Amino acid sequence: MRFFSDNAAAACPQVIEAILAANRLDTAYDGDALSQSLDGRLSELFETEVAALWVPSGTAANCLALAALCPPHGAVVCHADAHIQNDEGGAPEFYTHGAKLLLVEGPGAKLTPDTLAARLDRVVEGVHWVQPHAVSITNATEYGLVYTPEEVTAIGAITRARGLGLHMDGARFANAVAHLGCSPAEVTWQAGVDALSFGFIKNGGMSAEALVFFKPELAAVAKARRKRAGLLASKGRFLAAQILAMVEDDLWLANARAANAGAALLAQAAGDRLVHPVQANEVFLRATPQEAASLRALGFDFYDWAAGEIRLVTSWDQTEDQIRPLAEAIAAL
Amino acid sequence: MRFFSDNAAAACPQVIEAILAANRLDTAYDGDALSQSLDGRLSELFETEVAALWVPSGTAANCLALAALCPPHGAVVCHADAHIQNDEGGAPEFYTHGAKLLLVEGPGAKLTPDTLAARLDRVVEGVHWVQPHAVSITNATEYGLVYTPEEVTAIGAITRARGLGLHMDGARFANAVAHLGCSPAEVTWQAGVDALSFGFIKNGGMSAEALVFFKPELAAVAKARRKRAGLLASKGRFLAAQILAMVEDDLWLANARAANAGAALLAQAAGDRLVHPVQANEVFLRATPQEAASLRALGFDFYDWAAGEIRLVTSWDQTEDQIRPLAEAIAAL
Amino acid sequence: MRFFSDNAAAACPQVIEAILAANRLDTAYDGDALSQSLDGRLSELFETEVAALWVPSGTAANCLALAALCPPHGAVVCHADAHIQNDEGGAPEFYTHGAKLLLVEGPGAKLTPDTLAARLDRVVEGVHWVQPHAVSITNATEYGLVYTPEEVTAIGAITRARGLGLHMDGARFANAVAHLGCSPAEVTWQAGVDALSFGFIKNGGMSAEALVFFKPELAAVAKARRKRAGLLASKGRFLAAQILAMVEDDLWLANARAANAGAALLAQAAGDRLVHPVQANEVFLRATPQEAASLRALGFDFYDWAAGEIRLVTSWDQTEDQIRPLAEAIAAL
Amino acid sequence: MRFFSDNAAAACPQVIEAILAANRLDTAYDGDALSQSLDGRLSELFETEVAALWVPSGTAANCLALAALCPPHGAVVCHADAHIQNDEGGAPEFYTHGAKLLLVEGPGAKLTPDTLAARLDRVVEGVHWVQPHAVSITNATEYGLVYTPEEVTAIGAITRARGLGLHMDGARFANAVAHLGCSPAEVTWQAGVDALSFGFIKNGGMSAEALVFFKPELAAVAKARRKRAGLLASKGRFLAAQILAMVEDDLWLANARAANAGAALLAQAAGDRLVHPVQANEVFLRATPQEAASLRALGFDFYDWAAGEIRLVTSWDQTEDQIRPLAEAIAAL
Repeated sequence: MRFFSDNAAAACPQVIEAILAANRLDTAYDGDALSQSLDGRLSELFETEVAALWVPSGTAANCLALAALCPPHGAVVCHADAHIQNDEGGAPEFYTHGAKLLLVEGPGAKLTPDTLAARLDRVVEGVHWVQPHAVSITNATEYGLVYTPEEVTAIGAITRARGLGLHMDGARFANAVAHLGCSPAEVTWQAGVDALSFGFIKNGGMSAEALVFFKPELAAVAKARRKRAGLLASKGRFLAAQILAMVEDDLWLANARAANAGAALLAQAAGDRLVHPVQANEVFLRATPQEAASLRALGFDFYDWAAGEIRLVTSWDQTEDQIRPLAEAIAAL
Repeated sequence: MRFFSDNAAAACPQVIEAILAANRLDTAYDGDALSQSLDGRLSELFETEVAALWVPSGTAANCLALAALCPPHGAVVCHADAHIQNDEGGAPEFYTHGAKLLLVEGPGAKLTPDTLAARLDRVVEGVHWVQPHAVSITNATEYGLVYTPEEVTAIGAITRARGLGLHMDGARFANAVAHLGCSPAEVTWQAGVDALSFGFIKNGGMSAEALVFFKPELAAVAKARRKRAGLLASKGRFLAAQILAMVEDDLWLANARAANAGAALLAQAAGDRLVHPVQANEVFLRATPQEAASLRALGFDFYDWAAGEIRLVTSWDQTEDQIRPLAEAIAAL
Repeated sequence: MRFFSDNAAAACPQVIEAILAANRLDTAYDGDALSQSLDGRLSELFETEVAALWVPSGTAANCLALAALCPPHGAVVCHADAHIQNDEGGAPEFYTHGAKLLLVEGPGAKLTPDTLAARLDRVVEGVHWVQPHAVSITNATEYGLVYTPEEVTAIGAITRARGLGLHMDGARFANAVAHLGCSPAEVTWQAGVDALSFGFIKNGGMSAEALVFFKPELAAVAKARRKRAGLLASKGRFLAAQILAMVEDDLWLANARAANAGAALLAQAAGDRLVHPVQANEVFLRATPQEAASLRALGFDFYDWAAGEIRLVTSWDQTEDQIRPLAEAIAAL
Repeated sequence: MRFFSDNAAAACPQVIEAILAANRLDTAYDGDALSQSLDGRLSELFETEVAALWVPSGTAANCLALAALCPPHGAVVCHADAHIQNDEGGAPEFYTHGAKLLLVEGPGAKLTPDTLAARLDRVVEGVHWVQPHAVSITNATEYGLVYTPEEVTAIGAITRARGLGLHMDGARFANAVAHLGCSPAEVTWQAGVDALSFGFIKNGGMSAEALVFFKPELAAVAKARRKRAGLLASKGRFLAAQILAMVEDDLWLANARAANAGAALLAQAAGDRLVHPVQANEVFLRATPQEAASLRALGFDFYDWAAGEIRLVTSWDQTEDQIRPLAEAIAAL
């Protein structure tokens, strides 16, 4: 059983059905009926007028958002462990034409109002020093921690006060909202978020993420950049269909709840071994190399993380029955 | 019946089946078994060792190829009517970090050895003038004309002699090969082509094109750039599956032959109205606005092209029975 | 005697004196008193509030201006023979992060309202086609022709109506104004120009050009870009001093009048041989290779231009006595 | 008396004389006799064949070097306090088209073999993680510390072993060599350095730095990039003249020794207050705000650095008599 990552799981049946249903002639690019309905459908979900673009990867969503919020000569503040800093092969710099990422340290890959303000205060005004134009936070974070609406609001207050854009990398946004039990609006635009990378691929999708602008006027340039980056699929209806299927009847939340439940099961078994509280679908726990090896010998696959730590990620399609053996093996270590 | 473009048609059944078959857990990105088999499968098809990358659009394939062949301070020579010059929203400049496109005029959107050499000769050596590093040709061209192996070989002789890379935009490569009846090798690497954008989406695919390097050593940097551009899908097996399905039993050729046959039917009906010889699946013909309107009144959709010209594009899934009414309507004008 | 180009001539005595006078400790970069006085001094000259930046080359001035007026995904319309298109080694693409130059043909390297509007009209709206954001004209042009205030006003009316920026490459702006006898204001901001590359180096300067923004709010970003491009000299007072010296007592006009007078002398001698009317300090004339050789045998150096054409450029420091022998030699051909 | 920075001092008499001597007609750009002699003259100085380019700023020298050593998708490793990271307004990202700077901590803004190797070892191979292509060290560092030939050699051994380029930011290279008493060769190419930003402006120059490639084959692309960045002065002889004057009779070393001597005088007076050993011309010392104010009240100007620290920088033109009063004032604190 694989606990490597949720981004390699199968697509869920509703997504597959939606793709099959979309397999007929329609207008190319994003001129088709499904693509054209995205803005409206996501505006309903977020209870405000949004502009939404399908894109083929989370990296693309993140970097189109950053490019919309930060000019080439500017900077984006993010955590030192953020995906945009460490795992996107330099895509933020490519899309922004070389904007800098200014890094903040802190536990759980979370920014706090204090650490953020301190970093911003360190930047001297003037052309010699790259000036911040945006902040990017990840919800849930790289370590599976969730920002609450209150925490995002506190960060949003800083970005608003200083005239900065606020981006949320929501590759696991569904897991965060499933944990919080709040509305999607509360933890995004109502808290000051300008652009959200709304992830579906890790959550049962096949090949589509949504880039959601809560300032719809940012979308026009982002659409030009999407084309310019070779991301504008000819048959965009296949991407739109996936997003619409995930939003229908809150499938995105149901899938995320299933993954979160699996992680909770593992967390319970892990007890004192946990490196971080488990709030979404990632479990980081302390394990000696021997312990890790013994788990692998039982048929469980996962990543070694820092020295003496392993990472377990659960997926939308893993049932309690499938996860329980790993939970028991952890408890028995 | 729509004759707008082949890039909005449905995906063919074998592609759909392959996608469904790929819907199981596997390694993420391009580590899965299907993605890993692409190099081998396309090496067989091209009868030489190639490196092949799936990408989600023709623009992405073209621009990753250009970036592999031309540095930011260099130039790519192409036809003034090339897709990379006119229809990709500045993507070549984005991917190459601002390389210039140097344009060549000439009928049918084709370069000839003479027009190419003349353009190259106009560039004075020195840092004030952007120096050519690559040439890009389109086969079939924007006007549906096909370069023969001999024609490509003559161009390849020039690029080789001058140390330039040679890229072929093959968004409709299948239609070209179907017309030529040659092997894929003859009209590509054997003729001097270094990189091919091998199009499937217009030819019955859903969302995958192949970027084929005949100098496999170029692929490593292209793979880094693919990630950096947000093009590296998490579930790459869904893209690889499409390409493998299209190559299986030469489905790509069968689909292209069907589309070409449809265009031939229209060409026969058009007679003297033809603006260009019809070799692939595009038909450009002279029609007054009144004539165009009368065709539209019969339920046929298509683009107006230049003044007094219309463009008709046939697809893999249009049968002779479906096309015949348009042929008859044209003949009756 | 050399008639290659005005950009290799000596610096004039007043510029040298100003540099020597500036050779004392002052604040670094552009914080010194001379740099700080540029805005005010050029605002006087242009009879409106401007923001002015010193830069070390005409290419830098042009490209900072273009980057201020056009985003990476946009286009700049210019003449096919413009310096920014042909002679700047791809600098416009570097500074704009890959914006496209859309080219207009026409005699004398001049845009007209008709040719400009026709080119703009050819661009279809939509993300597939790079959209124009700015127009760049050169005054005097590459062929030594001068746009009148009326001509610029007609172009400016188009750019204003369509929401485009208007840049003037004034590498030989002084020669143009000397010819026109108008005020600098009349042929720039009063005619719709947003940014001017105000050239001094070809006109007796050593190493400083001024980038003048008639929309001063554009200067802040341009200053950040100037630093980011490594153009912000530590000892900026040496550049500011040159510009101030050139503006003092209208030295820029006196120098330009001298160069223009030399060219007029040659033009008179050339008679029917002239390819273009001579309005500034460049003379293009028809000469067979034998005739060109005979002039060179007399000790005159110059460039061959197109086949059967030569180019003669006069400088601020060439006296009538120095030029007369060439005039006589031309007349005697 | 100002101790702000050496980059605002006057140019030295020999540089001024050289500029005056260069004020005659010659070939434009770098075709003149002085520019053409740079390679030879600096090859003598460095006792090996080098290619040398004049550039108008240290930022330009650094960033052209980095662009020559690192592709857009790569990374440059440097100290967290490096000038390229903190003080160049994003120029490294502009010139490299978005390469990342990977940062190393450590005292005195110096890399050590251990900290460098540890940082390099943290980079996992693969397209998701930006791969290092070059290392940049600063000699003397931002804190006035000097790398010895042995220290550079140890770093060079790492870069060579791993196939990385090695750049030395030598904005104060003269001060470092004056301190070391070694040959320029020993601390550069003999120690593994591939490209040196050889600073003159802080050391008595006016507006020219030299970019020195110890792998001369790197210069061709750097020259194309120099033009593309608008750095190629029309009258390049004025820049070449400065460098040649500084190299003549080792003026660069004499000037640096004078500045270093001034700093040594201050260091002696500062005693226990020193934050870093004083090896070049920068003195960092602990001083309370009251102490700093009392020094300023005596007419001395300087920067506050970190809390409770001030920075004093001496220049080539400050005599012992001019510096002694500050030394005495420090001693008397």
